[in-house]
Amino acid sequence: MEKWLVGVDLGGTTIKIAFITFDGHIVAKWEIPTNISEDGKHIVKNIAESIFAKLEQLAEPRGKLAAMGMGAPGFIDMKTGFIYHAVNIGWRDYALKDELEKATGLTVTVDNDANIAAIGEMWRGAGDGEGNLLMVTLGTGVGGGIIVNGHIIHGTNGMAGEIGHITSIPEGGASCNCGKTGCIETIASATGIARIAKEKVLHDPSSSLYEILKNKGELKAKDVAEAAENRDHAAIDTLNEVTFHLGLVIANLSNGINPGKIVIGGGVSKAGSTLMSRLEKQFKRFALPRVAEGATLTVATLGNDAGVIGGAWLAKHNL
Amino acid sequence: MEKWLVGVDLGGTTIKIAFITFDGHIVAKWEIPTNISEDGKHIVKNIAESIFAKLEQLAEPRGKLAAMGMGAPGFIDMKTGFIYHAVNIGWRDYALKDELEKATGLTVTVDNDANIAAIGEMWRGAGDGEGNLLMVTLGTGVGGGIIVNGHIIHGTNGMAGEIGHITSIPEGGASCNCGKTGCIETIASATGIARIAKEKVLHDPSSSLYEILKNKGELKAKDVAEAAENRDHAAIDTLNEVTFHLGLVIANLSNGINPGKIVIGGGVSKAGSTLMSRLEKQFKRFALPRVAEGATLTVATLGNDAGVIGGAWLAKHNL
Repeated sequence: MEKWLVGVDLGGTTIKIAFITFDGHIVAKWEIPTNISEDGKHIVKNIAESIFAKLEQLAEPRGKLAAMGMGAPGFIDMKTGFIYHAVNIGWRDYALKDELEKATGLTVTVDNDANIAAIGEMWRGAGDGEGNLLMVTLGTGVGGGIIVNGHIIHGTNGMAGEIGHITSIPEGGASCNCGKTGCIETIASATGIARIAKEKVLHDPSSSLYEILKNKGELKAKDVAEAAENRDHAAIDTLNEVTFHLGLVIANLSNGINPGKIVIGGGVSKAGSTLMSRLEKQFKRFALPRVAEGATLTVATLGNDAGVIGGAWLAKHNL
Repeated sequence: MEKWLVGVDLGGTTIKIAFITFDGHIVAKWEIPTNISEDGKHIVKNIAESIFAKLEQLAEPRGKLAAMGMGAPGFIDMKTGFIYHAVNIGWRDYALKDELEKATGLTVTVDNDANIAAIGEMWRGAGDGEGNLLMVTLGTGVGGGIIVNGHIIHGTNGMAGEIGHITSIPEGGASCNCGKTGCIETIASATGIARIAKEKVLHDPSSSLYEILKNKGELKAKDVAEAAENRDHAAIDTLNEVTFHLGLVIANLSNGINPGKIVIGGGVSKAGSTLMSRLEKQFKRFALPRVAEGATLTVATLGNDAGVIGGAWLAKHNL
């Protein structure tokens, strides 16, 4: 009997779950809401029950499942599967791996959510099997995952890949959620892009973004990307500023780790070529020529499936 | 019979060679000049002859040697041991590993010289066995080596660890040998420190460096470090500027790879606490708190022996 892997991607609002073949194809995928009441104590039970219900629905026995891999937000001890603190979920000092194994009867591997997305893209997405990969996720924040020789790196205390908190503006930068200032997250996240554009157009009625800001009372990164497509000067200025800083961060990191693929994911990456062409120009400007030659800059292709697919890869490789 | 490893560290002027035990202790070490005449064609033969002569001198048979590991400057293909181009030596498209194996009868592993120094420090020096290590060598240039999970990383085309060419001044920085501008090598190398100090004191007779510059016609990084120890304001300004940029580079890279040890080597590291206390302050300012907590910043301890010891480690681990 061909067995399936279970990939789980835990977010603050929804939990994505999928049954996935050993060569990385999704057989079934679905979502359940994340129940964060009572410090997240129902989550593990919800996941297990949902998996068993889905098996029943597909008329498959529990033995059909080989192992589970899961991504979760927060600081995770990879060896023990212990979560120190997951702010959005409510877990603190929580033995996630053990609890999941008890509830499902499966061997479980857990990792950080940004890391499993990078692994997913490496395995079945834009990474195309490249074993040296840098993934940068531009969403509400800026996340990252670094793969070296086919394995995600965790560093000495699980902090590797915290690309969002690389300092781009050493003095006088905007405040970051991490407590520092001037992190690339304050510039290249959806929030950062909107902030920078807002500062530019607040007193500039000649920009199309001025009207949007006036009417809606706020700007979104999506508005900026659309205006840039339509050659709005303030929107283009904003993307130039953002890609200058992000290109520099990626080039500097690449001079250190020399990736073969650089995958840009998250909502902001949907801005497409308006963003990517500028980013590539800045990356090539600041990377060593041979480092730039070795790297392909590309947009993530798995979208919301990257996490569950990366989870399945983890499960497979820890069997 | 206890066997020995051979570590070789090839430089543009001298070749360092050592016999080293399997637990990393040097039994014998010596140097021979690097004969770069005729595009370096005599080097391999010189190394082999010197090793055999030393064995004879120690009254040991050739079978005493188990394997050889060697560091060389330039771009090296790790799998084949092929050197694309070693500027200072004259080799171009040179099958170093094969030639050494033919000449010595030993299994040979080759790697970049900055990388074997990092491995040496990890094994027997300041790295103290830490498997996640960042080494930064501040000499005439700025070199680097990154160790992840106990192994040096090479990246997709052998360029990993090119820390010296991380861009510190994106616009208007000094020209670098690599063709770019504003690389950290133009700031934190011995050459960079001397250049920055010179600019500061050229018209400032109140600095003690002004006299040195006037009398000798030039400044050295060593002069700057000594003057800073004596509280010369221009020398202190220079070190503040240098450690601001270097601390930022190291913090940014550390937010990516999360090392447990950061080892500073090379001639400039001899400036000691004048340099290191400032560097640590800037590193902690720009690193994520948990990244800073996980990392110890320390000066390399093996000096010129790091390369041969790292070479022996390579030899041992490829047996």
